[in-house]
Amino acid sequence: MPNIKIGIVTVSDRAHSGEYKDLGGPAVMEELNSALTSPWEAVERVIPDDQDTIEKTLIELADVEGCSLVITTGGTGPAPRDVTPDATEIVTTRTLPGFGELMRKVSLEKVPTAILSRQMAAIRGKTLIINLPGKPSAIAECLGAVFPAIPDCVNLIGGGLLKTDPEIVKAFMPHE
Amino acid sequence: MPNIKIGIVTVSDRAHSGEYKDLGGPAVMEELNSALTSPWEAVERVIPDDQDTIEKTLIELADVEGCSLVITTGGTGPAPRDVTPDATEIVTTRTLPGFGELMRKVSLEKVPTAILSRQMAAIRGKTLIINLPGKPSAIAECLGAVFPAIPDCVNLIGGGLLKTDPEIVKAFMPHE
Amino acid sequence: MPNIKIGIVTVSDRAHSGEYKDLGGPAVMEELNSALTSPWEAVERVIPDDQDTIEKTLIELADVEGCSLVITTGGTGPAPRDVTPDATEIVTTRTLPGFGELMRKVSLEKVPTAILSRQMAAIRGKTLIINLPGKPSAIAECLGAVFPAIPDCVNLIGGGLLKTDPEIVKAFMPHE
Repeated sequence: MPNIKIGIVTVSDRAHSGEYKDLGGPAVMEELNSALTSPWEAVERVIPDDQDTIEKTLIELADVEGCSLVITTGGTGPAPRDVTPDATEIVTTRTLPGFGELMRKVSLEKVPTAILSRQMAAIRGKTLIINLPGKPSAIAECLGAVFPAIPDCVNLIGGGLLKTDPEIVKAFMPHE
Repeated sequence: MPNIKIGIVTVSDRAHSGEYKDLGGPAVMEELNSALTSPWEAVERVIPDDQDTIEKTLIELADVEGCSLVITTGGTGPAPRDVTPDATEIVTTRTLPGFGELMRKVSLEKVPTAILSRQMAAIRGKTLIINLPGKPSAIAECLGAVFPAIPDCVNLIGGGLLKTDPEIVKAFMPHE
Repeated sequence: MPNIKIGIVTVSDRAHSGEYKDLGGPAVMEELNSALTSPWEAVERVIPDDQDTIEKTLIELADVEGCSLVITTGGTGPAPRDVTPDATEIVTTRTLPGFGELMRKVSLEKVPTAILSRQMAAIRGKTLIINLPGKPSAIAECLGAVFPAIPDCVNLIGGGLLKTDPEIVKAFMPHE
């Protein structure tokens, strides 16, 4: 069986242009490396805050690369260039509102502006796409909150079996 | 005045085919019997996880049977055959996001995979439709959490007056 | 620099016809007067629960008056004449689900029927539109809960800088 592929997409004009060093992608990678014990392969992209580019990247990672999970970082706020959730909604068929609700809830314990985040999770075929904020500390918080439900979701949509280190992430797999 | 009708719809391929005994419908019935003190009449259906069938059933229960309330059980997850919320959204005109939020919140206290539930509530004319999960224990939890708001909602949309036993469900009726 | 304009829209058939005194608009005004320390100008409207009228009013306040923030009060429930969120959704391009989630959460601590509220916040160009309930006590609760995030949001969408009295509202401005 081939390794499960996971897309990691940094959405940031400044990281893409090289003005900033990409901190979001490596933060996502670190969380995944720490939590996952089954073999997996990262497919990384750093793209600008352009809705069309985000849509094409998500489609490529899902349909061509065959990623079971795609995690985006950045572009979730209310500013005009923040369009990651808009792109995600367009290329997916079903939204999982509980992800956004829980991620905003845990972020709200830290900052009142957590309610400005439009981050969401949704499904395209056999691919679960999750939007995370761009800030590394918020990435760990948000991903940590929803991670225990990710393996069951990926399995239910036909994306394969992800195993986690229970010391780091206690995945709950009622359907395994 | 005729009795208020309440639709109870079990959505499950396996309960419909007879492979499984329907546990969801009877669990909903038990909750309603225990909480409601005003006369009501159940209209029960057991149907497969087929979006077209669910849509037609919801429309029939609302428009032909004249149910004030329709409660579905099953088909709320992320798997491809889970299409109850999708059908509900299509046949209704207005969503009540607070129901899904609260039901996921109470379920999340039990299992981290509660965020995978896409269950919702929405209105079609004079009918309130509420999606519950398929698992009997989750039915009691979710319905119990939102029940205090149901009689006010049904009344506000013209569905009639439901009375509850305050020892079981403390309904809040600010508009009565 | 011209004063920032804030629209205050009372949506109520009975306040509009004069049957009731408008209590919602003045309650919003009081909250804003108490919290804001930077100069601002109110643009007030009292309109009926008519979706077309609400849409036109929101568009006028955003596009013609140039309001950075528009706060509506009333019409957020499930009754057929409650259409404020429906109008808001139609005239805006992006929803901020965290506002509705948090407002329902704080209201739920008071009344179980908080889950019936469909109140939302969304963006039209450089205008943030927030739906509040009609009841004055619920206005203070809901607006108080989301207020700390409003100045950052208005700033991020190009609506200018709102300053608050930190004794009343501790605004969080990570992007200033």
